[in-house]
Amino acid sequence: MISVGIVGGTGYTGAELLRLLALHPQARVELITSRTEQGLRVADLYPAFRGCYDLTFEAPDADRLAACDIVFFATPHGVAMELVPTLIERGTRVIDLSADFRLDDITSWENWYGQPHTCPELQKQAVYGLPELNAEAISKAQLVAAPGCYPTAVTLGFLPLLRSGVLASHDLIANAASGVSGAGRQAKVDNLFAELNDSFKAYGVSGHRHLPEIEQVLGAAAGEPVSLTFVPHLLPIIRGIHATLYASVAAQADQLQAIFEDFYAASPFVDVLPAGQLPQTRSVKGSNGCRIAVSLPQNRGKAVICSAIDNLVKGASGQAVQCMNIMLGLSETVGLDAIALTP
Amino acid sequence: MISVGIVGGTGYTGAELLRLLALHPQARVELITSRTEQGLRVADLYPAFRGCYDLTFEAPDADRLAACDIVFFATPHGVAMELVPTLIERGTRVIDLSADFRLDDITSWENWYGQPHTCPELQKQAVYGLPELNAEAISKAQLVAAPGCYPTAVTLGFLPLLRSGVLASHDLIANAASGVSGAGRQAKVDNLFAELNDSFKAYGVSGHRHLPEIEQVLGAAAGEPVSLTFVPHLLPIIRGIHATLYASVAAQADQLQAIFEDFYAASPFVDVLPAGQLPQTRSVKGSNGCRIAVSLPQNRGKAVICSAIDNLVKGASGQAVQCMNIMLGLSETVGLDAIALTP
Amino acid sequence: MISVGIVGGTGYTGAELLRLLALHPQARVELITSRTEQGLRVADLYPAFRGCYDLTFEAPDADRLAACDIVFFATPHGVAMELVPTLIERGTRVIDLSADFRLDDITSWENWYGQPHTCPELQKQAVYGLPELNAEAISKAQLVAAPGCYPTAVTLGFLPLLRSGVLASHDLIANAASGVSGAGRQAKVDNLFAELNDSFKAYGVSGHRHLPEIEQVLGAAAGEPVSLTFVPHLLPIIRGIHATLYASVAAQADQLQAIFEDFYAASPFVDVLPAGQLPQTRSVKGSNGCRIAVSLPQNRGKAVICSAIDNLVKGASGQAVQCMNIMLGLSETVGLDAIALTP
Amino acid sequence: MISVGIVGGTGYTGAELLRLLALHPQARVELITSRTEQGLRVADLYPAFRGCYDLTFEAPDADRLAACDIVFFATPHGVAMELVPTLIERGTRVIDLSADFRLDDITSWENWYGQPHTCPELQKQAVYGLPELNAEAISKAQLVAAPGCYPTAVTLGFLPLLRSGVLASHDLIANAASGVSGAGRQAKVDNLFAELNDSFKAYGVSGHRHLPEIEQVLGAAAGEPVSLTFVPHLLPIIRGIHATLYASVAAQADQLQAIFEDFYAASPFVDVLPAGQLPQTRSVKGSNGCRIAVSLPQNRGKAVICSAIDNLVKGASGQAVQCMNIMLGLSETVGLDAIALTP
Repeated sequence: MISVGIVGGTGYTGAELLRLLALHPQARVELITSRTEQGLRVADLYPAFRGCYDLTFEAPDADRLAACDIVFFATPHGVAMELVPTLIERGTRVIDLSADFRLDDITSWENWYGQPHTCPELQKQAVYGLPELNAEAISKAQLVAAPGCYPTAVTLGFLPLLRSGVLASHDLIANAASGVSGAGRQAKVDNLFAELNDSFKAYGVSGHRHLPEIEQVLGAAAGEPVSLTFVPHLLPIIRGIHATLYASVAAQADQLQAIFEDFYAASPFVDVLPAGQLPQTRSVKGSNGCRIAVSLPQNRGKAVICSAIDNLVKGASGQAVQCMNIMLGLSETVGLDAIALTP
Repeated sequence: MISVGIVGGTGYTGAELLRLLALHPQARVELITSRTEQGLRVADLYPAFRGCYDLTFEAPDADRLAACDIVFFATPHGVAMELVPTLIERGTRVIDLSADFRLDDITSWENWYGQPHTCPELQKQAVYGLPELNAEAISKAQLVAAPGCYPTAVTLGFLPLLRSGVLASHDLIANAASGVSGAGRQAKVDNLFAELNDSFKAYGVSGHRHLPEIEQVLGAAAGEPVSLTFVPHLLPIIRGIHATLYASVAAQADQLQAIFEDFYAASPFVDVLPAGQLPQTRSVKGSNGCRIAVSLPQNRGKAVICSAIDNLVKGASGQAVQCMNIMLGLSETVGLDAIALTP
Repeated sequence: MISVGIVGGTGYTGAELLRLLALHPQARVELITSRTEQGLRVADLYPAFRGCYDLTFEAPDADRLAACDIVFFATPHGVAMELVPTLIERGTRVIDLSADFRLDDITSWENWYGQPHTCPELQKQAVYGLPELNAEAISKAQLVAAPGCYPTAVTLGFLPLLRSGVLASHDLIANAASGVSGAGRQAKVDNLFAELNDSFKAYGVSGHRHLPEIEQVLGAAAGEPVSLTFVPHLLPIIRGIHATLYASVAAQADQLQAIFEDFYAASPFVDVLPAGQLPQTRSVKGSNGCRIAVSLPQNRGKAVICSAIDNLVKGASGQAVQCMNIMLGLSETVGLDAIALTP
Repeated sequence: MISVGIVGGTGYTGAELLRLLALHPQARVELITSRTEQGLRVADLYPAFRGCYDLTFEAPDADRLAACDIVFFATPHGVAMELVPTLIERGTRVIDLSADFRLDDITSWENWYGQPHTCPELQKQAVYGLPELNAEAISKAQLVAAPGCYPTAVTLGFLPLLRSGVLASHDLIANAASGVSGAGRQAKVDNLFAELNDSFKAYGVSGHRHLPEIEQVLGAAAGEPVSLTFVPHLLPIIRGIHATLYASVAAQADQLQAIFEDFYAASPFVDVLPAGQLPQTRSVKGSNGCRIAVSLPQNRGKAVICSAIDNLVKGASGQAVQCMNIMLGLSETVGLDAIALTP
């Protein structure tokens, strides 16, 4: 049985790791930390875990964490980079769900996240944890930087085009919408039910931290820089990201369909829908799937790709477990076979 | 591997059976029927099942159904009673999720459901499928009538009181609220999103079909008739029933707490919350659990019991699978260990 | 033109006063205060008021407030009682939407609100601002205590029974559910969208501050004490309260219907629905109406009354404006004729 | 007092006309028709109108309609064109909220709407009812074709750019999302609460009927054809459209801001937000406003315009009333001054 530690378990991605790992046949969560809630039973914070977990939040302790086979960081940015170096040094494998190790360009990271990066040297060995792109590297990694939620939905939608040579331009548009759980579990007026329900809005139009991450990954995949216009929106739902992507292409609709189907033929979690079908977020709610549809409206040379994930699963904790499976030589899908909760 | 047939699989309880049985290690759905959708692939009606089920809806055929180890009816009332007699005769075990075999009093059934009952003799051998009440009888039954959604939430909440002798009166009140999936998947203006979202209302105040069902079960448990005032309400959520129950008692709060904890000590799916905690529907969403809290506000002799279930799981398909497990000698919890989807 | 001041205008009841008074033909908001947001333009906090109000939040100043014809307090409890005495002394009329002057029994107030009451003598002259009960007194009052949201819905539902002599017992039950705006605009994890959407729960079962308020009003109306079991619930909607009330009666259904219709025959905002219809919160959303239905399910002597209001309008700011109209000798309905926003 | 007739009053745009006109000081709804609901009281179909309207749905009668000063058609497409010619002949002024008279190109109309157009000659005199574009023509029109909901939000967002000469390309993208009320009040499984809540999806990607309408209006405004990629999405809210528009421009951010502010300086219902603010649908809920923000993310030459309206008000019935005001020589804003319902 693989022993798992979770650092920062009070947020939604921490809770989702608990939910997913509870049913993992080969891993067990041995310890979970929280500075603010130490001493509180997990089941008292999250009643859904009553009868399932007997864990209590504890203060993070390097020795206890290092003794785990694998440690997940489900912390705000800036936390993992303080503790990860010690764990890496002791040989513990780490999957960081925060943004600390996602950007190769340290200066860019420091600009977007507004603080100095304390271990730039570790960044060099971090592997970007998108299994559909990087499975081989993930399998050997000691430190995996799990992708952001928007970057997962957007990158999976653009990748086949970038790799296929049909793009007429590297000027891309990603119009994405996320459920509110992506904003985390902080007490902010902006995230109150009465502020968000029954409404919809764009945010972060001038610049969102996921922009450089997406451009880095897409640029690397394309072999040349891409320029992305990225506009995130906030949906009055808890879970789910839907990305609507626009790209100029030199290809017919059936070619595009074939490009996508071929690209993801061996990916168990990415489902390319038949031509004419479109994804909806509920059909991946609670599951690790990503559903993608590609269209060429009115045959005008502008491809529209729709991509849907559950931001807490494929966009965060599920993808992290998928990485763990790969790192440990297990089948990618172990513990991740739950079907979306519909209706 | 147990072979399962589902009659009437296009509705929400049929879809939920598919979702739950997909992960059941010892059962496999071999056939699913629908008169209206025959020839349609299940995954085309419910995209969430893409990659999981390769089944196609077929017309109901007695021979093919009788060849299954167990057949679930997820049909509107009035359908099962036409087909069940043949299956029973051939030795197939049946779990009916509809109302056809829930009421012992055939005249009452015919009054409430507005049609003649076509096999009253079978009613005599039907076992009411509430495992917390009837596990022994269910294990031997050939025909199980799975309880209604409201009756499950209400009955589980009142049972410990009825059996304990602390009730000061058999005049009971059940104020319950259900998610919209309980209304099924019929095209009705009343159930449109724009009619129900952002609103709340009572319905069926003058009389709801679940009233005689609840009174029958509670009366049998009490050993004398009970009179229930039952008011259902419609919540702008998809899944979940919350029942708030009122009863006059001659007992102190800690006695009540002990009565509930003792009563459900051996029930894996009923969770009596510690004094002072209250259930919420989200903490059972997608799970087979029922969470119950008992209070005695202001020590005035009026007990308030809150009971929460997912109407599609413990209130329908999950409870039916639980019955199947018991009928087949499996552990009650096999395939039903998923944790609620929170947030 | 009547000059209006609002103390504590950043919360939802303050914003609702602004929305309603913007269209009032005979009143104008001259100043609005907020300690925390002074200097902020109202339209920057609430973009819905762009182009409508040019006000800026200012620090509360007794002189400026006293110069208004009428001052509303839309503050948390404990604030009004500090400032109201000065205004009363100077002859300004005051409508307090908070709880400070609602309870006649000061000891009870101090127990339920957990702090000393600083001006018990003023309590004696405060008039409880439920126009359907107290219009005459309100018209002459200098200090009106606007009722709580739950007390409005519950009291309007019980009043006709209490006054009619058909009650078989003074043991009453009020099962009520409120939209989230009732919880105010504070940054609390419990009120986040991701915590409340798609769920439903009871809260405050052991004791809610509106209990003594309701019992006081109902007891006064009945001429003898009543005992209420009051269970509030939280709905995943922003606006709306629905109360389902239970009472034992010695009367037939048509008698009950007549009692309610007669009682509210002259009340422009209380609409007794025809027998067989039931209210829904959306049909009062944004309006000052209260819709009430009375039933006698199965003719068993237990009356069920359903009562629906918008908690921010009839349950708070609309009712306060209704009181203002009465105090100023205007028609009760001036500025309050907006129709509910449906769908 | 202007006498108003409404044809097809059972749908949501019909109900919204009733809601808005109830408070219009110079217009009164004299008759409302419905073939399916004739004989039903309006207040029985829409309880929100209890106490406000005493109208009963009647069968459409040309004489009675022709006697009105103005007739609104709130019908599905294909209905108005049968009855409008008679009314026009008799001199009655008509505002058609359906699509029958929106497209100048009759062949295009017949292709997109899949039926023959029965009065192409009338199309020539129909005026497209977007007041911000066509106020002069509307004031003299006998037949006004009120714009579609998406076309209103999209056109208002693009117009200033098209007229300003800063567009670097006429290749435009409109990514729009609508509340469910836009789908109407038909009994369809796809529009059930349990199918749409807690989810989000694109639809009509291959081609939506509002595409030719938008391209026609934008092309006319630009003086040359534009090519639009238009992707609508369905939001789990009842009211509201948010359009996110993308266009390549040769201009700086402050120029863009000035272009928008100047363009709408005299438009009472279009509110250009200050730089840095973004609209949300709730801040126009129930109001006739359109809120627009223009951004130039990362200064990369790609303008992003966000535009929000209430699809039932500015996107349908409110805009129709605005047109009526203009046609009758009233101030544009009469009866349309309600503030958005927030929260």
